[in-house]
Amino acid sequence: MIKEQIPDIIVGRLPRYLRTLLILRETQTTTNSKELGKRLGYSAAQIRKDLSQYGEFGKQGTGYNIDFLIDSLNHILNTDRNWDILLVGVGQLGHAILNYTGFSKFGFHIRAAVDINPNVIGKKFNTCVVQDIGKMKEIIEENQIQIAMLAVPAENAQETAEKLVEAGIKAILSYAPTTLSLPPEIRVEYTDPLISLQHMTYYL
Amino acid sequence: MIKEQIPDIIVGRLPRYLRTLLILRETQTTTNSKELGKRLGYSAAQIRKDLSQYGEFGKQGTGYNIDFLIDSLNHILNTDRNWDILLVGVGQLGHAILNYTGFSKFGFHIRAAVDINPNVIGKKFNTCVVQDIGKMKEIIEENQIQIAMLAVPAENAQETAEKLVEAGIKAILSYAPTTLSLPPEIRVEYTDPLISLQHMTYYL
Repeated sequence: MIKEQIPDIIVGRLPRYLRTLLILRETQTTTNSKELGKRLGYSAAQIRKDLSQYGEFGKQGTGYNIDFLIDSLNHILNTDRNWDILLVGVGQLGHAILNYTGFSKFGFHIRAAVDINPNVIGKKFNTCVVQDIGKMKEIIEENQIQIAMLAVPAENAQETAEKLVEAGIKAILSYAPTTLSLPPEIRVEYTDPLISLQHMTYYL
Repeated sequence: MIKEQIPDIIVGRLPRYLRTLLILRETQTTTNSKELGKRLGYSAAQIRKDLSQYGEFGKQGTGYNIDFLIDSLNHILNTDRNWDILLVGVGQLGHAILNYTGFSKFGFHIRAAVDINPNVIGKKFNTCVVQDIGKMKEIIEENQIQIAMLAVPAENAQETAEKLVEAGIKAILSYAPTTLSLPPEIRVEYTDPLISLQHMTYYL
């Protein structure tokens, strides 16, 4: 299996499968494509087809062993290890991100945060102290951080993202309401509720 | 054109086109599929194909008039009007949502917020006062609210979402880290940074 040859749309569904399996595991040890499909709103055939890209996880008639499928998906997604994250921008949203504890139980740890605002620099949170944005490159290199969360205003997002890439960041989760233009090898994901709202109203 | 027949994957790209056009409008009056594609990371052909689902927006050689395309996309997405939103759950994340002013300039107004916690009920924010979750149905009906943001813990999300649907909500933007199982006519979008992180690490 060559990971890069599998369509990204399939890859994007794997974390959702994982999420659902973690919920199912609380009450059962096996599941099947029909049950997963029903929970996720996909067809059973879709789920079988997606998973078959990565191997043989279930048996005709007995379905999937949940623990095994969770371990396999974590291995495929590289989420069977810990990841350090740099947060750029500690405004209102950045504060909420730093106070939120939901990432770390899945292995994502915000190890450092930077901002340009002197009123925020030095502020202490659970896992880190906010540092000057001028130290960004140094922090990334010293800690070999590959993932950044971008929570700066839209007008600063592109410039900041370029600096992150120069400093060695390989993946950016952007909260900024703008589209970033970066080299194709950099993974960019957007968390953008406004886009989701505008998508929904199409159907209303 | 019958809206429901156009693949949802195309619909999902329209808000991103709109976003990019709004940025381009600050400095120019026309654009073309090549420029849009470059900014968004899609091919020019993809953009022409997507837009052609909805009509003829550009002319060979002269490209797109940005104002016209923005107006057209807003009309297609139903974002040329105002929408009222109910926020369910005013914890840490809910506070950040209520304090955030970025939605309203795009016509999305949080008109009401509800929570179960007596310490939060009665708390006043820019646009609303937090009310008891017991009044949810009444609030939705009285204000004819169609869109809800769900910011409750994962374990309460499904039950709360079902109550929202019973009360008349047609679209839910869920911040809860779980997958909702709702009737197919209900639009559900997830804003879930964890899913995005797990998607990115696949490639790292």
